[in-house]
Parts: sequence; structure tokens; C-alpha cells
Amino acid sequence: MSSQRATAFVPGHVTAFFSAHRDDDPTVAGSRGAGVTLTDGVTVRVSAADDGDTVADAAAAGETTIDGEVGSIGAVDDVLAELDATAADVAVETDLPIGAGFGVSGAAALGAALAANDAFDRGRSENELVRVAHAAEVDRGTGLGDVVAQARGGVPVRLEPGAPGVGELDGVPASARVEYVTFGELSTEEVLGGDTDALSAAGEDALDRLRADPRLPTLMDAARGFAGEADLLVPEVAEAIDAVDAAGGEAAMAMLGRTVFALGTGLSDAGYDPEACRIDAAGARLVDD
Amino acid sequence: MSSQRATAFVPGHVTAFFSAHRDDDPTVAGSRGAGVTLTDGVTVRVSAADDGDTVADAAAAGETTIDGEVGSIGAVDDVLAELDATAADVAVETDLPIGAGFGVSGAAALGAALAANDAFDRGRSENELVRVAHAAEVDRGTGLGDVVAQARGGVPVRLEPGAPGVGELDGVPASARVEYVTFGELSTEEVLGGDTDALSAAGEDALDRLRADPRLPTLMDAARGFAGEADLLVPEVAEAIDAVDAAGGEAAMAMLGRTVFALGTGLSDAGYDPEACRIDAAGARLVDD
Repeated sequence: MSSQRATAFVPGHVTAFFSAHRDDDPTVAGSRGAGVTLTDGVTVRVSAADDGDTVADAAAAGETTIDGEVGSIGAVDDVLAELDATAADVAVETDLPIGAGFGVSGAAALGAALAANDAFDRGRSENELVRVAHAAEVDRGTGLGDVVAQARGGVPVRLEPGAPGVGELDGVPASARVEYVTFGELSTEEVLGGDTDALSAAGEDALDRLRADPRLPTLMDAARGFAGEADLLVPEVAEAIDAVDAAGGEAAMAMLGRTVFALGTGLSDAGYDPEACRIDAAGARLVDD
Repeated sequence: MSSQRATAFVPGHVTAFFSAHRDDDPTVAGSRGAGVTLTDGVTVRVSAADDGDTVADAAAAGETTIDGEVGSIGAVDDVLAELDATAADVAVETDLPIGAGFGVSGAAALGAALAANDAFDRGRSENELVRVAHAAEVDRGTGLGDVVAQARGGVPVRLEPGAPGVGELDGVPASARVEYVTFGELSTEEVLGGDTDALSAAGEDALDRLRADPRLPTLMDAARGFAGEADLLVPEVAEAIDAVDAAGGEAAMAMLGRTVFALGTGLSDAGYDPEACRIDAAGARLVDD
């Protein structure tokens, strides 16, 4: 039975480090690495487009809004097409900054998949929906590993790249407050479109360190090493990481964004005025409307 | 840094149907099948045993309590031994009935693994902790698939048996209210210790049906078919399932327990006085003390 409307919540995801893995098949492509999912995330509401009385209305495709403004997200469009739901209205809402390393595009794609499947009773399994969203995100070049991480929740470790059935995940068991400050956008497409060999080598080193010692402080330390080795640090972020370190805390850069995130009260203690949330234990999920 | 105390919550899990898969290696053994995880679950608090001033106190092993009463759960003991934490005090608390098909022993084992790892900073990954708890549960003969399901949360589908790295999971995407009524215990050890060939054949049939159509109503229908084919239905449960059906609802038997569970208000509508909770989206997790 189709309810014709459904809502999903998908946590934000800050990547601590990663290596890029290309493949012509977008379900096989992806990234290894690790990150932290956040209770600050993206809510996606999918509903049947208003039935119009006129021919023009009836033929119109559904509308996507982002925080109330009409817009479009490529990966969301692809997900809706795959689920035969292009006539749906999609409302994406988030308090997270967009383009700043929180995986908002991946979250929107995964949330659209979960909500459209439920609203229109498409009968796909969780793995199938994650696969559809992951493939859309990879095809659009907006991310490589956020979707599978956001589906799992917690502190996901991407052992092998790719969608469910191809990739492999583990997690660092942890519950913690997370603070973050954003200084602006950084283009994922631009970094991922360039030469990623040095970046990927640094990412593999960082993953080896974390697998040998799956603890949160090791993740943060490996993330700082990665940002330096991969030459991705921007001045404001480097300054904030140093300030948190000087105040006795743990911070790192969100990949890929001009964003710094810290455990506990790290950024507050260093004199910043951060947003605060927690590690999200649940991962992507349907929620009540 | 070790905090010397930590708390984990693990959802209850009612198995809808299953097939048993034996192996000498308990991480390879397990079950295929599907079930529903519940926001009613088990809280496990692990702390360093009180330091005694006397030699006798100092040498004493830690104490396990179950809802405040001193007791023991074999799988919990094995988990603590594996994590070198036998001197810990463990407090297991649950509102769920024990021995009635809610996976309380698996939840206690997994909660002990997560909490002991955190309290004593053992540095194991999530997959490793699930593996330790799954192996302990299989070795003790108290369950075959609850632990991996409880680690995932939601409506887990066990595609392949075994611990992380061996088994394979999917899920039915769903959010729903769940009601349940329990009429008493049914020994998991006794059923699993007997001839399980007919049961497993029925479980494989049910899983094929659900994989072809991963929707909640199909899961409930496949569960009813399984209970009949596997000859596990007990009279009070059969009567309740029929009553819910007559009232237009969906109910099934929890494997293995004299327990019936229903979606939405199925049991209330049929005139029962059930416990009510929801599908647990998150799965096992550390929580604040």
C-alpha cells in the first residue's frame, strides 16, 4: 500500500581521510577511508506532486526544494529516475552548510531513495537503495564514500570501496560530542577530478594506522597527517586545528571542505563559536512525517 | 584513556523465520533469516569491580547482575574472558521477558562487548566486537543470528550466516510501531539442539519470498508460513495471530518464544493488552552513563 509521502533523515558525514578508487561501474567505484557521522543531517520529504486540474500541471515533473528554495541536486534527480519517481515533489532541509564537507549531496540522494521507495511502495531493500544513491553520487562526481558511511552511521571505516555487496565496512565504536566550524566551500568535483595519486597514498597510510588501532584519537591524528601529506590544508583550518591542539583538544579538517571538526568541546575551548552535535548512532532512516 | 565504566544499549530482536547453519567455527556458524529489532532492549553497564582492601576482595572476579539480581549469562562470561575483562562488574537491565524470543542473551553479550571495550579501552573495532559476541552466543547454543541483527538495527535480513566478514546482511526499509504479548518461555537450546532440517527448509523458503519482495507485510506473511511449516506454533500464539488477522492486522510468532508480535495496533485491536515499542533504527550502541 502506497502512502504517497514519506520522510527520511540522513546524518551528515565528515570524512577524516580517504583514498579514491575509480571504476567504470559506479557501484564498484568509491573510496576507502574513515569519517564521523553527525546528528546534524539532512531531512528529505518525498510526496506525490500536487494533482493539477490542467493538462500543463498534470504533465509537469515534480519540484525539488532545498531549504525552501526551488533548486536541483543531480544525484537526487538520478535516484528519482531510477525509482520511477520523477513526478515526486522533494523537499530537502538541512542546517548543515552545503559544499563544506558534510556530505549533503550524498545525504540528499540517500534520503530521496529511502523516502521515494516508501512513498511509492517500490519494494527495494536497504542495500538496493544505498546502491542506487551511491551510484548516483559517484556518477555525478560529488562524492565517493559518503553514502555508504551515512547508511551505516556511527564512525564508519570504509575497508573496501563500493556499494553494498561490493564494498566492506567496519566502524570505530564511539559515542561523542562533535563541534564544527566552517570557513567556506571547497569543490569536491575539482579535487576528485584532478590527480589523486598522492592523496590516495596518504589515505591508504592513514587507513592502515586506524585499522591497527581503531580508536577515535587515532582517527583524528591520522586525519591531521592525511591533510598535511595530501596538501589539502587551507590556512583558516590549519590555524583552528593548531588552536584546538594548543587548548589540549583534538581537531581535524573535513574532507572536502573548508571545515574543521573537533571532539568534545575542542573548538569552544579554543575560543571559537562552533556548531555542536553528536556522533549519530543510527545512520540513514525513515522517520515519521 | 580508560574511563573504567561504560554503558551500551542493544535492541531486542524477534526472529520472524530462520534456517540453521552449523560449523565448527562459531564465527562461520549462524543462521539465515529475518526479524525485527525493537526499541525495547537491553542496557548493559560495565565497570571496574570495586577495588577491595583485602586480598580476598582483590582476587574476586567481577559480579554480573540481571535486573538487580546476581546471576550469570554464559555468553557474557565468554565475551568478558575474550576481552580480558573478567574482573568487571556487569549490570544487565531489560524490560523484555527472558527466554521468550527477544534475543536477550545475544543483546547482553553484544552490550557487554561494546561496554567492556569502551570501559577498559581495549581498542577493538565494531566488527571485532560483534564477532566476539556472535561466537560466544553460538558456542553457548543460545542463539544463531540475533547478535548480527541487533548490531545492524532496523529490520535485518540475514542473507548469509556468520559474523561480520563472513555473513552478509540486508534490511527491509521500514519504520513502524510494534506490539507484543508473551505467554511464556520456549527453550532455544532444545529446538536448536534437535533435528532442524525441516525447520531450515521452511526458513529458506521464507527467505526466498522476502528477498523477492522486501516489504514488511511480506515478512509477516512469510513468518506465519514458516511457523506452520516448521511446526513451531503453540496454541496461545496461534490463537492470537488468528485474532489479529480477524481484526484486520498482521501478527506472527517470535522465534523462539511463546510470543506473538504485531505491526501497528494489531494486538490492541484484537483485544489484547500488549507491550508497545517501535522498530529500532540504530542497532547496538554506546550510550551515556
